[in-house]
Amino acid sequence: MTGIGDDCAVLSIPAGHELLVTTDFTIEKIHFRRDWHGPALVGRRCLTRGLSDIAAMGGDPRAAFLSLAVSNDVPQKWVDGFLKGLLELAEEYEVPLAGGDTAESAAGIQADIAVVGSVPKGTAVLRSGAKAGEQIFVTGELGGAAAALERMAAGSALGAEWSRYLHPRARVAVGQWLRQRGVASAMIDLSDGLSTDLEHICQESRVGAEIEAEAIPRAWAGRGEKRVAQELALDGGEDYELLFTSGASVPAKVAGVQVTRIGRTTKSLGMRLIGAEGKTRRLDAGGWEHFKGVR
Amino acid sequence: MTGIGDDCAVLSIPAGHELLVTTDFTIEKIHFRRDWHGPALVGRRCLTRGLSDIAAMGGDPRAAFLSLAVSNDVPQKWVDGFLKGLLELAEEYEVPLAGGDTAESAAGIQADIAVVGSVPKGTAVLRSGAKAGEQIFVTGELGGAAAALERMAAGSALGAEWSRYLHPRARVAVGQWLRQRGVASAMIDLSDGLSTDLEHICQESRVGAEIEAEAIPRAWAGRGEKRVAQELALDGGEDYELLFTSGASVPAKVAGVQVTRIGRTTKSLGMRLIGAEGKTRRLDAGGWEHFKGVR
Repeated sequence: MTGIGDDCAVLSIPAGHELLVTTDFTIEKIHFRRDWHGPALVGRRCLTRGLSDIAAMGGDPRAAFLSLAVSNDVPQKWVDGFLKGLLELAEEYEVPLAGGDTAESAAGIQADIAVVGSVPKGTAVLRSGAKAGEQIFVTGELGGAAAALERMAAGSALGAEWSRYLHPRARVAVGQWLRQRGVASAMIDLSDGLSTDLEHICQESRVGAEIEAEAIPRAWAGRGEKRVAQELALDGGEDYELLFTSGASVPAKVAGVQVTRIGRTTKSLGMRLIGAEGKTRRLDAGGWEHFKGVR
Repeated sequence: MTGIGDDCAVLSIPAGHELLVTTDFTIEKIHFRRDWHGPALVGRRCLTRGLSDIAAMGGDPRAAFLSLAVSNDVPQKWVDGFLKGLLELAEEYEVPLAGGDTAESAAGIQADIAVVGSVPKGTAVLRSGAKAGEQIFVTGELGGAAAALERMAAGSALGAEWSRYLHPRARVAVGQWLRQRGVASAMIDLSDGLSTDLEHICQESRVGAEIEAEAIPRAWAGRGEKRVAQELALDGGEDYELLFTSGASVPAKVAGVQVTRIGRTTKSLGMRLIGAEGKTRRLDAGGWEHFKGVR
């Protein structure tokens, strides 16, 4: 790579590859609160949002670009912590921070992350590839991030047992595995919540979906006594797990991450939730907002 | 292009090309004021900033990505006007808006534009390629944008004669011409002002520079009675003209745009300004701030 500190970064993409590009805002008071979220955590999540979008295409992340605006009352220590968190994660995923922009903000902190990746031409896993009669899968466990946020809103301290929900991991290796083997017909990352992101796949693929409520892998709340409420697993955002459809057989673990079948796609449009006793109700997109009712 | 509305945009880059990536913030109260700058103008400038960075590498812009955060007290009409201005310019330059992000902002408007472009491998014009003893050139006229801002700050209405300074044009065709013919050894776009951007070339190329004050093409102030003050031409930002060095012969017009020789690079480091009577003084980077002393 050349051109760092130049007008543009100059990058090479392997021959025969297509380019993937995604950008995501992380805004103080909208996506995080400085009194709840430490700077390193905010930095990690900022990059995770972009990496997770690359993962959802089955892509290789190649470089990240950070635009960061900070008002002059934000301590330099906060900015240092944010960058440390972001750069540590960038190193873990071997994604160089190749450029970006810095600016003064009028108030608070705004960060926009752009991540550039690539896939062999024609192999990107889109949202639009699902067919009726396929199985629906998710990675990991759902609702943990939303449950952690609920606890913070209630003023509870979060013990170490919450750490993995506060530090979601972009499922890059899982996405690549599924793409390389042609296993996933459609894929999306769970940033807005299962119900909302599943609706995106249904709409883009023109299929319906039936989800088995009991099959959803709900996150463990706190010290493992119980699982989070079904509503959080359905509508809670920011888990950054992958949701995908497949007509092939899928192992229970991919790249070390648990994969769970939660339902199937249907010819009949719309989304339905099948309860424990076989009762079916309509499932609507929950529309995750980060601090709904909390701000 | 596929994948619009997907997790990432999927783009093709011509075989044998390298990728160029740039991101630039446009922030209310920092880069524009809603009471001074119309929404379409802000939208055009937002994209111009990115296109101009691609121009400065001699590149082909291929796609733009807009992250836009708007607080809920900003009228939809403003957002519509902003997008209209941005999209009109995107069409003019044949650069599709291929994705991005939208978010609620905590206050005001923040836009981050990412532009992806390409150049044949190894041909990007960097800031670091200048050699001592070359000539220094600029496109167009300088100081017009800063003069327009001064007038707005003084409460003066701006007539149509100011329009071209309010609507700077990214010099994409000029940059490409210079790159294709190997004419420019180093290049940068004038976003921060001549003195500041020239310093970037000098530092990256490890050369000095002598600028002839009388040679600088100063913009016409207002109805053409007089040229803007030398200080504005030296230190005023946002003209988005190109500054480049060359050891070759350079025509007076490239791609329809005036090109003016303003000085030469030197072995001895630092920047010097040679006045009308041959008097030489040190030239320091002016450090353009958009509303310095105005806010």
